[in-house]
Amino acid sequence: MTLLDQHLLPTTRNLSERYAAIRDRTERLAAPLSPEDQVVQSMPDASPTKWHRAHVTWFFETFLLLPHLPGYRRLREEYAFLFNSYYEAAGPRHARPKRGMLTRPSAAEVGEYRAHVDAAMARLLRDPPLEVLPLVELGLQHEQQHQELLLTDILHALSQNPLLPAYDRDWRDPAPPPGGMRLLEGPEGVQRIGAEGSGFAFDNETPRHRTWLDPYRIADRLVTNREWLEFMGDGGYRTVSLWMSEGWAACQAEGWEAPQYWHQGDGGGMQFGLAGLRPLDPGAPVHHISWYEAEAFARWAGRRLPTEAEWEAACGLPGFLQAHDVAWQWTGSAYRPYPGFRPWEGAVGEYNGKFMIGQMVLRGGSLATPPGHARPSYRNFFPPGVRWQFSGLRLAADAA
Amino acid sequence: MTLLDQHLLPTTRNLSERYAAIRDRTERLAAPLSPEDQVVQSMPDASPTKWHRAHVTWFFETFLLLPHLPGYRRLREEYAFLFNSYYEAAGPRHARPKRGMLTRPSAAEVGEYRAHVDAAMARLLRDPPLEVLPLVELGLQHEQQHQELLLTDILHALSQNPLLPAYDRDWRDPAPPPGGMRLLEGPEGVQRIGAEGSGFAFDNETPRHRTWLDPYRIADRLVTNREWLEFMGDGGYRTVSLWMSEGWAACQAEGWEAPQYWHQGDGGGMQFGLAGLRPLDPGAPVHHISWYEAEAFARWAGRRLPTEAEWEAACGLPGFLQAHDVAWQWTGSAYRPYPGFRPWEGAVGEYNGKFMIGQMVLRGGSLATPPGHARPSYRNFFPPGVRWQFSGLRLAADAA
Amino acid sequence: MTLLDQHLLPTTRNLSERYAAIRDRTERLAAPLSPEDQVVQSMPDASPTKWHRAHVTWFFETFLLLPHLPGYRRLREEYAFLFNSYYEAAGPRHARPKRGMLTRPSAAEVGEYRAHVDAAMARLLRDPPLEVLPLVELGLQHEQQHQELLLTDILHALSQNPLLPAYDRDWRDPAPPPGGMRLLEGPEGVQRIGAEGSGFAFDNETPRHRTWLDPYRIADRLVTNREWLEFMGDGGYRTVSLWMSEGWAACQAEGWEAPQYWHQGDGGGMQFGLAGLRPLDPGAPVHHISWYEAEAFARWAGRRLPTEAEWEAACGLPGFLQAHDVAWQWTGSAYRPYPGFRPWEGAVGEYNGKFMIGQMVLRGGSLATPPGHARPSYRNFFPPGVRWQFSGLRLAADAA
Amino acid sequence: MTLLDQHLLPTTRNLSERYAAIRDRTERLAAPLSPEDQVVQSMPDASPTKWHRAHVTWFFETFLLLPHLPGYRRLREEYAFLFNSYYEAAGPRHARPKRGMLTRPSAAEVGEYRAHVDAAMARLLRDPPLEVLPLVELGLQHEQQHQELLLTDILHALSQNPLLPAYDRDWRDPAPPPGGMRLLEGPEGVQRIGAEGSGFAFDNETPRHRTWLDPYRIADRLVTNREWLEFMGDGGYRTVSLWMSEGWAACQAEGWEAPQYWHQGDGGGMQFGLAGLRPLDPGAPVHHISWYEAEAFARWAGRRLPTEAEWEAACGLPGFLQAHDVAWQWTGSAYRPYPGFRPWEGAVGEYNGKFMIGQMVLRGGSLATPPGHARPSYRNFFPPGVRWQFSGLRLAADAA
Repeated sequence: MTLLDQHLLPTTRNLSERYAAIRDRTERLAAPLSPEDQVVQSMPDASPTKWHRAHVTWFFETFLLLPHLPGYRRLREEYAFLFNSYYEAAGPRHARPKRGMLTRPSAAEVGEYRAHVDAAMARLLRDPPLEVLPLVELGLQHEQQHQELLLTDILHALSQNPLLPAYDRDWRDPAPPPGGMRLLEGPEGVQRIGAEGSGFAFDNETPRHRTWLDPYRIADRLVTNREWLEFMGDGGYRTVSLWMSEGWAACQAEGWEAPQYWHQGDGGGMQFGLAGLRPLDPGAPVHHISWYEAEAFARWAGRRLPTEAEWEAACGLPGFLQAHDVAWQWTGSAYRPYPGFRPWEGAVGEYNGKFMIGQMVLRGGSLATPPGHARPSYRNFFPPGVRWQFSGLRLAADAA
Repeated sequence: MTLLDQHLLPTTRNLSERYAAIRDRTERLAAPLSPEDQVVQSMPDASPTKWHRAHVTWFFETFLLLPHLPGYRRLREEYAFLFNSYYEAAGPRHARPKRGMLTRPSAAEVGEYRAHVDAAMARLLRDPPLEVLPLVELGLQHEQQHQELLLTDILHALSQNPLLPAYDRDWRDPAPPPGGMRLLEGPEGVQRIGAEGSGFAFDNETPRHRTWLDPYRIADRLVTNREWLEFMGDGGYRTVSLWMSEGWAACQAEGWEAPQYWHQGDGGGMQFGLAGLRPLDPGAPVHHISWYEAEAFARWAGRRLPTEAEWEAACGLPGFLQAHDVAWQWTGSAYRPYPGFRPWEGAVGEYNGKFMIGQMVLRGGSLATPPGHARPSYRNFFPPGVRWQFSGLRLAADAA
Repeated sequence: MTLLDQHLLPTTRNLSERYAAIRDRTERLAAPLSPEDQVVQSMPDASPTKWHRAHVTWFFETFLLLPHLPGYRRLREEYAFLFNSYYEAAGPRHARPKRGMLTRPSAAEVGEYRAHVDAAMARLLRDPPLEVLPLVELGLQHEQQHQELLLTDILHALSQNPLLPAYDRDWRDPAPPPGGMRLLEGPEGVQRIGAEGSGFAFDNETPRHRTWLDPYRIADRLVTNREWLEFMGDGGYRTVSLWMSEGWAACQAEGWEAPQYWHQGDGGGMQFGLAGLRPLDPGAPVHHISWYEAEAFARWAGRRLPTEAEWEAACGLPGFLQAHDVAWQWTGSAYRPYPGFRPWEGAVGEYNGKFMIGQMVLRGGSLATPPGHARPSYRNFFPPGVRWQFSGLRLAADAA
Repeated sequence: MTLLDQHLLPTTRNLSERYAAIRDRTERLAAPLSPEDQVVQSMPDASPTKWHRAHVTWFFETFLLLPHLPGYRRLREEYAFLFNSYYEAAGPRHARPKRGMLTRPSAAEVGEYRAHVDAAMARLLRDPPLEVLPLVELGLQHEQQHQELLLTDILHALSQNPLLPAYDRDWRDPAPPPGGMRLLEGPEGVQRIGAEGSGFAFDNETPRHRTWLDPYRIADRLVTNREWLEFMGDGGYRTVSLWMSEGWAACQAEGWEAPQYWHQGDGGGMQFGLAGLRPLDPGAPVHHISWYEAEAFARWAGRRLPTEAEWEAACGLPGFLQAHDVAWQWTGSAYRPYPGFRPWEGAVGEYNGKFMIGQMVLRGGSLATPPGHARPSYRNFFPPGVRWQFSGLRLAADAA
């Protein structure tokens, strides 16, 4: 299957505007950060801001401009090596854990690289061949994914500085949910999940297919900080019987006692976020928890995590709150291909398929997800020990 | 749910005989091994023969004799600490990677421990209370599982010795399969999988539940060494596009170039097995491969691994060969609980549930599995990088 | 013993000028580097440029201004935590391997910190109490040491960037030595080594003491790249019998085949240095070699490394070239205290003494050492596997 | 230099008896140990008893029988590979950390190997060529060294077993020293140290050479457990200013709070030793301490460790107690070659020289050293973090 088969074509005109808007958003996200902020890599899993800005640009250059814009010239040959992330088919690349060594090119030079590619993309989009349109859309979706990572990664980097500098003091998280948790009845029996076929979707959301759901209930909202404090107060982080064996080992080895970025001092709990260190809001959804913690919490609460199929089937129910704009929601499903899955053809086929082992699916979207990027069939995925994402949980239960 | 709810009761008389037969089989498996062979631990994942012999005995002592046989006395108090594997509810325990340090008690003393427990079990089984019967059966199933591990672990230990000593020169692997591979049509639509409810099953095989299967085909037999040699000859271990990203990293880091225990020299391939170093049989099923390798092979062959539901639904089809007695068969399914899963109550509830993350399901059974132990609903599970088990693969495909 | 006891007092007037000159030199060394260059830490042993600039400033603030300038106020309290290197007596400190996380304070803010301290130091030095003078001198010597580290550390950081950017394209290494190597007769019998007592010396150079030297000869110049190429051509890096057991293990584990920063391609050897990637100069002294390599080379050459006492006793001989301005010279001496050694009193007592294990002594000075900083009694020291310093070797031999 | 040049020849007759006596002692040391005890390797630095027994035998086979006894045949070819320790010149060898995997050959088969070699050695010693005599002596000295390691290694292995089995319940440590510590005046000025040239010595004890000693004092006896308890009671293990930087890191990383093998419970201190777990004797010398601990203790006591030259010069003084039969004594000297050092020629040249980096010298001898093996010029050496040897300390001080 190809990208082209799969997606309806956006109109050219919209695409140009959409391209400009999304590219501009990346630069606005990077704007509060100094050149020094943009260069550091605080752990191998995270990337520097500058690298994100350059890599998404490399994507357009590699998959759009070089094959489809006659006469296009790279700004600098070396960038092909520096800014490839993991595409084996696109050639060798700089080692991931060494992205923080790239003091050159400077943040300003990366800006020039972006401008160079944007100018060429404008030429390409003036009268684009039909077959490039889905690739342009893929490039934009890809850039949106990196917009979220840019935020999660810089948050981690800033958290390593004892000064705890704020990314943006004026940043506001979404308002907390209205009140008590209610359990909704989920759709049961043979259900269809996966991307509908209209509008963009990643290959991992396809094909749409049938699955069987036993009767279940699912919470209308996410678990809150207040509820998490109860779990902690009840010894949740010290009670081995609540945990998966592997999760307990991680909890002990990492010394987990609270979600990442919590600072518990004398004057009550604080939380480090995009606005800096702020008092913990008990009504806000908990985030920065690993799958292990989410699963242990659910067991403590006498519930369980929903499967990704349950989540998707219930997502459109009336009363289903906080679906896409608060926190990614760990599910009980391992990240594996759907029945009949085919990766995209060509180099972009490495986009998703080769990561389908060792990771758990998160559904929804987060406060760091670009508006309009997420959708009910969207599949996010991370290893079960990861905490630096905006990851929370929604409870589920078997029907009585 | 309790074990008692779940299983029909075997008759007392049969149980005594069954107990004696299974316990005796363990000792016969250990018989070819010297005290020195029985003490070593060749890697943290493996255990010494002597430890297996003692641990299964501890299981009967802890879960049967101490709670249910009035006046039972432990042979030695310290054994409770030494031979607990991972039951948090049963108290502290010796560190797993240090099992090879237990030069004392000696192999002979472990034999005395076994005799002590067997004598007490004989008293208990003379007129057993109804509620202990399922626990006895669980203890026997548990011992059978360790019989297989005893063989896989000693094979690994002997393979570390440059002398490559044989476990048993007269050991014979099962005869190779008849011929070419055929694809069988699997049952489709809503199917029921999981333990039927008659006969013993582990908690992880329950509850029996509905699942949806899209049309698929599944091979009648396992992949052979000959087919694996083709994969190798075609550069399978050097072609990154065939591999999961995490699998490729493992392949590079471990230097995999062939299945574990293959020795490829000038005079053609050899394979180290329970009978020692022998010429590779091209018609025999390949084993000692990781999930990563199995999955890469399937991609190379233009096929895929079956899901565990597909495997179980197809297991009874006419022509479905090599189900339970040759090699465990990696599936495409992550090891997660079935819908509605409840672990057993009490300490034995730690048996399976807490390992349901980070592992892949294998189905079937192997040449090292005790006869009669496996069944269609049986779920084996290991991390995707593990190779020291008798693990092979059976191919599947979407229906055309 | 105190610093005061030990050293003659420089005149106040000279000290003010000397302070200004040395502080200024640090800023000139940092000037070619962008804010991004100044923030990265390329390995735990190296520190960011910005950190060096701030840490040497913290030293003056902590040991001079706070105790001795009434009314002095820190610019920011947090800097005490961020810029303490290893002084336990001076309070807690930021973890060494995380110095690269300090995107804030910015390079510019560090400049402000330096100006703040310099202004206060100017006040202090206007009419300084007698007892601060040796501490001022210590602070300046300390800053000079960090000037060298600033260069070695940024060279390492830039070497990690595939673009291989130059620190300063106009940098010139010292001219190569005149010609063939000659062996000088060293002074023998009872000799005195250690600091004379006039002029500044670190505590580890004291006390001056007697030692016995058997007859020996020592080379008039350092080993050159040409000679090193002969060693390589003769299989030096592949001949186990030339190496210490521990050195061979390091050589294998690290994959050493040439000195660090050598790039051996088709068109002849290149070397990465402060001026960027340049053709290897065969006549220049080899540097960026570990003690293990130096020692193996000496064995290959039928010579040995001099002891530090031999080096110091011979240093003033006529014809003894390249003593202080080319490359540090590994000796055969482990870094241990001199007989009768007493560390300085107070917090500065942590300066040297606590590192007197696991390291080898280097003598001389390098192209990166500030002019006037080194002296015959100077003891530099690094673990035997370290290569990122400007470290070379001078051969010695027993007298025939 | 060769062994032959260096040593006087023992008479042939004495050598045969001496050979038999020393070889027999090894077997008597192994006698209390079961085959299982003899196979385990509890850490990479330690070796199994069985391996020690075989390796010392391999030494005679390789360096004596194969080159010097016409018609000698190896018992089994593979043993050359299995039982070479580190002699590169003697061919490839089994990986050190995997010595514990050698369940075969059995302990009994190793006994047969010893008998095979002993029989051949008897033939060789009947009328031995002159040049083999020093090699025979070397082989015997080598076997004595392994006799000590056999004890230290099995003690470590048994300590890993929660049952804490005794090596030999009847083992008796030497009686504690008489009373309070006295400081003796050491010989000063130009002194000669190193092996005299009569009687056997290892190459690392040569050549005898001059050295200069400033005035010093040295304790007449070793530090006791009682004194060590004072150090602990005074917070010795928690006071960073007492420690070398590297030692403090080791102390923290390893969680040291007392010497190795101390068990501090409610009923007073216990110590695990060759006789099993016994009450701590306050008057006995402390052992199983690292160099880091010894050095920190000396600083706490206002003393220092003696250099190895000071130790050797003082060793023969009247009143110098506990020289050779209690515990090895850490010195302040790094293990480096003596001036003019030449390793032996041939493969035995790898005996000592290649380990002369990264280790500290211990002098004296221990309760585990075979009687008659140690001498004043003897140099033992271990890395500064090692604790499983019988290592203690003797204090020294500069003369007032």
